[in-house]
Amino acid sequence: MKLSIKIITFSAIALCCTHQIKAQKQLHNYVDPMIGSEGVGRVFIGPSCPYGMVKPSPDCTVSPNSGWLPLPKEVTGFSQVHVSGTGGGPKYGNIQIMPFSGALDKIDQTSHRAEENVKLGYYETVFKENQIKTEITTAEKAAFYRITYPKNASKELKIDPGFFLGEEAIPDGREAQQFVGSQIEIVSDTEVRGYSRIRGGWNNGRAYTVYFWVVFDQPMTKYVTFKDGKFYNNQPAQFDSGKKTAALFSFGNDGKQELNIKIGISFLSELKAKNNIEVEIPHWNFSTVLASVENKWEQLLSRITLSAETSEDYKKMFYTGLYHTMIMPVDRTGENPLWTNDEPYYDDFYCIWDTFRSSSPLITLIDSKRQVEIVNAMLNIYKREGYLPEGRSGNDNGRTQGGANASVVLADAFVKNLKGIDYEVALKAMLKDATVPPGGNEEKEGRGGLTEYLKLGYLPYGIDRAGNRTIDYSYNDYNIATVAKGLNHTDLYNQYIKQADNWQNLWRPDYTNNGSTGFIMPKDASGNWLDEVVFGESKIQKPTFKYTPVIIESPWYVCHWCVFFYEGNSWEYSLSIPHDVPELVLKSGGETAFKNRLDTFFDTKLYNVANEPSFLTPCLYHWIGKPYLSSDRIRTIIKENFNTSHEGLPGNDDSGAMSSWLAFHMMGLYPNAGQPYYLLNTPLIKETTLQLNEGKIFKISAKKMSDKNKYIKSALLNGKPYNKAWILHEDIAKGGELIFEMDSKPSAWGTTILPPTK
Amino acid sequence: MKLSIKIITFSAIALCCTHQIKAQKQLHNYVDPMIGSEGVGRVFIGPSCPYGMVKPSPDCTVSPNSGWLPLPKEVTGFSQVHVSGTGGGPKYGNIQIMPFSGALDKIDQTSHRAEENVKLGYYETVFKENQIKTEITTAEKAAFYRITYPKNASKELKIDPGFFLGEEAIPDGREAQQFVGSQIEIVSDTEVRGYSRIRGGWNNGRAYTVYFWVVFDQPMTKYVTFKDGKFYNNQPAQFDSGKKTAALFSFGNDGKQELNIKIGISFLSELKAKNNIEVEIPHWNFSTVLASVENKWEQLLSRITLSAETSEDYKKMFYTGLYHTMIMPVDRTGENPLWTNDEPYYDDFYCIWDTFRSSSPLITLIDSKRQVEIVNAMLNIYKREGYLPEGRSGNDNGRTQGGANASVVLADAFVKNLKGIDYEVALKAMLKDATVPPGGNEEKEGRGGLTEYLKLGYLPYGIDRAGNRTIDYSYNDYNIATVAKGLNHTDLYNQYIKQADNWQNLWRPDYTNNGSTGFIMPKDASGNWLDEVVFGESKIQKPTFKYTPVIIESPWYVCHWCVFFYEGNSWEYSLSIPHDVPELVLKSGGETAFKNRLDTFFDTKLYNVANEPSFLTPCLYHWIGKPYLSSDRIRTIIKENFNTSHEGLPGNDDSGAMSSWLAFHMMGLYPNAGQPYYLLNTPLIKETTLQLNEGKIFKISAKKMSDKNKYIKSALLNGKPYNKAWILHEDIAKGGELIFEMDSKPSAWGTTILPPTK
Repeated sequence: MKLSIKIITFSAIALCCTHQIKAQKQLHNYVDPMIGSEGVGRVFIGPSCPYGMVKPSPDCTVSPNSGWLPLPKEVTGFSQVHVSGTGGGPKYGNIQIMPFSGALDKIDQTSHRAEENVKLGYYETVFKENQIKTEITTAEKAAFYRITYPKNASKELKIDPGFFLGEEAIPDGREAQQFVGSQIEIVSDTEVRGYSRIRGGWNNGRAYTVYFWVVFDQPMTKYVTFKDGKFYNNQPAQFDSGKKTAALFSFGNDGKQELNIKIGISFLSELKAKNNIEVEIPHWNFSTVLASVENKWEQLLSRITLSAETSEDYKKMFYTGLYHTMIMPVDRTGENPLWTNDEPYYDDFYCIWDTFRSSSPLITLIDSKRQVEIVNAMLNIYKREGYLPEGRSGNDNGRTQGGANASVVLADAFVKNLKGIDYEVALKAMLKDATVPPGGNEEKEGRGGLTEYLKLGYLPYGIDRAGNRTIDYSYNDYNIATVAKGLNHTDLYNQYIKQADNWQNLWRPDYTNNGSTGFIMPKDASGNWLDEVVFGESKIQKPTFKYTPVIIESPWYVCHWCVFFYEGNSWEYSLSIPHDVPELVLKSGGETAFKNRLDTFFDTKLYNVANEPSFLTPCLYHWIGKPYLSSDRIRTIIKENFNTSHEGLPGNDDSGAMSSWLAFHMMGLYPNAGQPYYLLNTPLIKETTLQLNEGKIFKISAKKMSDKNKYIKSALLNGKPYNKAWILHEDIAKGGELIFEMDSKPSAWGTTILPPTK
Repeated sequence: MKLSIKIITFSAIALCCTHQIKAQKQLHNYVDPMIGSEGVGRVFIGPSCPYGMVKPSPDCTVSPNSGWLPLPKEVTGFSQVHVSGTGGGPKYGNIQIMPFSGALDKIDQTSHRAEENVKLGYYETVFKENQIKTEITTAEKAAFYRITYPKNASKELKIDPGFFLGEEAIPDGREAQQFVGSQIEIVSDTEVRGYSRIRGGWNNGRAYTVYFWVVFDQPMTKYVTFKDGKFYNNQPAQFDSGKKTAALFSFGNDGKQELNIKIGISFLSELKAKNNIEVEIPHWNFSTVLASVENKWEQLLSRITLSAETSEDYKKMFYTGLYHTMIMPVDRTGENPLWTNDEPYYDDFYCIWDTFRSSSPLITLIDSKRQVEIVNAMLNIYKREGYLPEGRSGNDNGRTQGGANASVVLADAFVKNLKGIDYEVALKAMLKDATVPPGGNEEKEGRGGLTEYLKLGYLPYGIDRAGNRTIDYSYNDYNIATVAKGLNHTDLYNQYIKQADNWQNLWRPDYTNNGSTGFIMPKDASGNWLDEVVFGESKIQKPTFKYTPVIIESPWYVCHWCVFFYEGNSWEYSLSIPHDVPELVLKSGGETAFKNRLDTFFDTKLYNVANEPSFLTPCLYHWIGKPYLSSDRIRTIIKENFNTSHEGLPGNDDSGAMSSWLAFHMMGLYPNAGQPYYLLNTPLIKETTLQLNEGKIFKISAKKMSDKNKYIKSALLNGKPYNKAWILHEDIAKGGELIFEMDSKPSAWGTTILPPTK
């Protein structure tokens, strides 16, 4: 037995090496789905098509967000739906299967991995206990499993639609997924159908249903079905009675060692799941499916090519970054159970609070047609359900953390002139968020605390997340102003451009901390600044704790969602005013004070690389005419925090948020989402070529760049001197070439014409 | 051919007569489902178990609310889900079947009825064109069809899950049901499965899915399936691709003329629908199913027995009234697709605005255990979805017309001491409505306009339905005060008992109309009374129209939902203050003025018998010490508006609202929902015996009552003189006997101790 493990391991390595050689030609081979899989990254490691609906992957216990955990953690099975990079309570983990050998008498078939091999579109593991090898590849809506059992071992399989991630003992625990129902039905000796219906999870969503259809390449010889703790020998179906169902199958131990399985899923019906298999995988060839998913990614990844001398590590980091950005949201067009489905439908915006800054802009840059579809899907959700999505997952709109950030995505599409979007509808959708309080569950959609925000111009302390919501809403107001202006709605523009200053209402000008003055601080409804903030409720006592700009975590007795700043402190959020950095500089005491403030922020570790609200902050030196300092910070941040290891992402990847931040900066670009330009920095890659729409090409190159020559001395745009440390999207979109001349010391380049502002 | 029609007609009449004779023993034979079927009543006429989930019935075109319309209107088929007595856009009409004879080549098999025979649990019709007889009976979740084809005719059947009621050319038309998806699958030569997924309808609800399983008693010989306008010969399944699907079946023309069909439905799955058939109808005996539904109703109807001499017409009106009251809400326990289903789950509260006054109290009186289940289902909806239901249908909470009327139902359960309800949770649920604006879609749940109501104490003109919402909310506040007081939450009681006076904020004391002074009238946010009210929006013009207390219909250019008073005028609503009639009497100028006001109201036809907000008004004479005038009014209203004809209900029955109003008054009782007493009036029935919980019996009898002797002279409760024209629920619930001594002229009885008040 031990010998056979080694043989499998060796052949796996051999296979690996073959691919390694090929990899030099094919970009998808630079993708390493394991980057960011361990530590805090939480990326999905299984095979997935771009924006793919089915996401098969191992589940290690019921708690991890992506399903996967590193060896030696046990595996309970392989389920078909997952998300990537998320925090909070897990979502999905539906329709689990698990191969095993032995009697059909227990539902738990947990095993341990002896090894694991992961590449784009492909997953492989061998179990320690039984030497069963599982290989997985996938199409858009149907997954393909190739199970290889040891010689003479009997071939058994579990299908468990009762399983899901994040089950908790307390059935209504906040953010915990909850079982609603499941069903399983043996259709023939090669087919099984059924579904899993689950509610809750991180976004506290309504029930969603994942239907499945399974086809085997050989007839089963025996089965037992399972419901609510009991096995049944002669019942080929277990109907939904609100109890967990499953089935165990035997395929005997005669004949070939391989069992091939196709699993189609659907959010409409089992027959649609079957149709998804028939349309996508009308054969039994594992390699064909694998080649197809590789090819889909190759088409997308090749929209950006890097110069030949780029290091393997940089290529891996970059293409894996692009890959992670395009795993979610998920294309569910034709799979919408809520309204007729001839419109684009996307789910798993998880969540826009994370992705609006860099993921959406990167998709816009690589594949603007896709971004148009995604935006139209968002507008359709608004039209049918009344509000734009924020943390939408499982076909349900909630949950909000701060702003109504779909506004930024819409404004970004508008300023980048994406065609095929009804921007009058987009404006209406944004105005709905800005004018109609979401009520009831204020965390679900729209702007919680809107009434107070409109009345006072800020959210008073006591309303959950008053600090960051005030900031985010003022940015969302700016987004509305942007679109209103572009559509010639002057009255609306005037109103919202004024509201865009609302962040200033929480700016406490005289407050000093760590050498800097002026911070976004808690204020009560009467306008009083609060040094001590209350927590909890009591008629007699008013317990308080001291609030300062460096407080990140509130005391344990304050709920995570009730704090003044969500997942951050005042130092971070007081630098997060993407639409009016010049005013922020002024309020901070001018250029020198602002430089000191930024230096303090980065040098004394107040900066949190893992947190999206600080994504733009390293670039803020641009607004005081020191873009080389931005480049220095970015290079340091990347070197210290990003690499090609399993722990190569410094925070939850959050549907590619971290990854897209990295990919942008490696090219020397960084978007200010909702605004029509990119900031320019020293790239990490000498030459990047973007394939844009209509055959347009835009090339960025850094001549003479080296570890020493890390500063931009001068630049040429299409052969003409270019002295701005930022570039309009339209200048990239129309194609051309941007050449940086690099030098060993900072220069005057980009220091005089500051980036655009409100 | 004509001859055979006559024969069928004769035998149907013969059958009828047989039942007629038997009817003198069995109460369910007094139920005539056709009462209220024509004109405005809109009751469901097909067979249904009490609170039954499946409601099979013919559909006459796609527009009628109950599906049915009188002959000679054509029938498109028989669908399995309907509602009873509703107005607005139709809901349901799912899983339609239609027998026919002929080629399997067209989806439209519309036919005309030659005759129709309807009784409790049974429906029968014969089609003119093809002499096919369709008989229907039903269990809780599975319907049974017996189709008899003419001799030698070929037996064909359509199953059409693409059909639904209320389809409109504009797919997103307000209140129009919208197609989402459907599926059909031939399982074997005797079984078909599939589903229909529809959204919208009157309550603008999210998508709901009705799954079905059909079993035939004989094998089909041929079939074609259908999708999106095309027929398919060799495809036994049509999966859901967002297009309408159906199938046509032939059972040949050999063998017997009868085709028996069982249709199980489920809101969970097709297998659950199949299980529903297996559990409920494990045989092929039509009569057994019919006997079972008759028996279920008999058990319930026999909770109230009437004295033997009661006229046939009165028996019909009374028992049909009870029957209509218990058709909805629908018991969907075990059929909830939204959360685990081991709790009671009811749907089709359609809507509580209509039913809280009389339907709920009647169920409480007849079958308090059922009411406890319904209340707990409402509380579960609050716990899982955040708000209590109002116009819930298709598993979605919306829509509100006025108050958050679930509060009245909860308060009614509380004051009537129903056991097995967590009233602390009930109070929380009511407080949610009273404190958290529903936001987004203000029509969906909770209290729309709450922010203004809390700020101003009334809804200013300009907010939809400002008048009736102000009144309803103040009553809901009284409901909260009631429960808070009972649970010893003194602070809450003090707050809400004060808010219960908010209706007074819209009382315009000096306003005179038709000889009466003081009306609920529109007021703006600054506190100014409005004689002219604006409509529409324009920057330059402010178009207005004159508002007076007699305006029922606003001008055509004002939307139906935007008016000041929903479905009524100020005359009606200014008399609809159920918690503080004494204050209303005072504000109206004292007892004489109030009497004149009531007289004007009834005598000049300002009273609208069809409208629920005036349900209590005929009893208001009680509060000025003239209960005999109440009795006079009630007797006149019933005689003029209610009878045993197809047009025997004067308004939309609204899930039994009209019917229960009648049934209560026939017994001499009328509840003031949310308060612990019934008003006493001259009954229409000489002796009514109520079978209550724990074997308790309460008997109401009117000695010497005749057309002449229509006034109560005196009363004895359990042998002791009883001089109040009202009785506490607890005095009925503990059992006993109330005897009225009748006389030909009004007496002093009941004139001194007025009914309880706030």
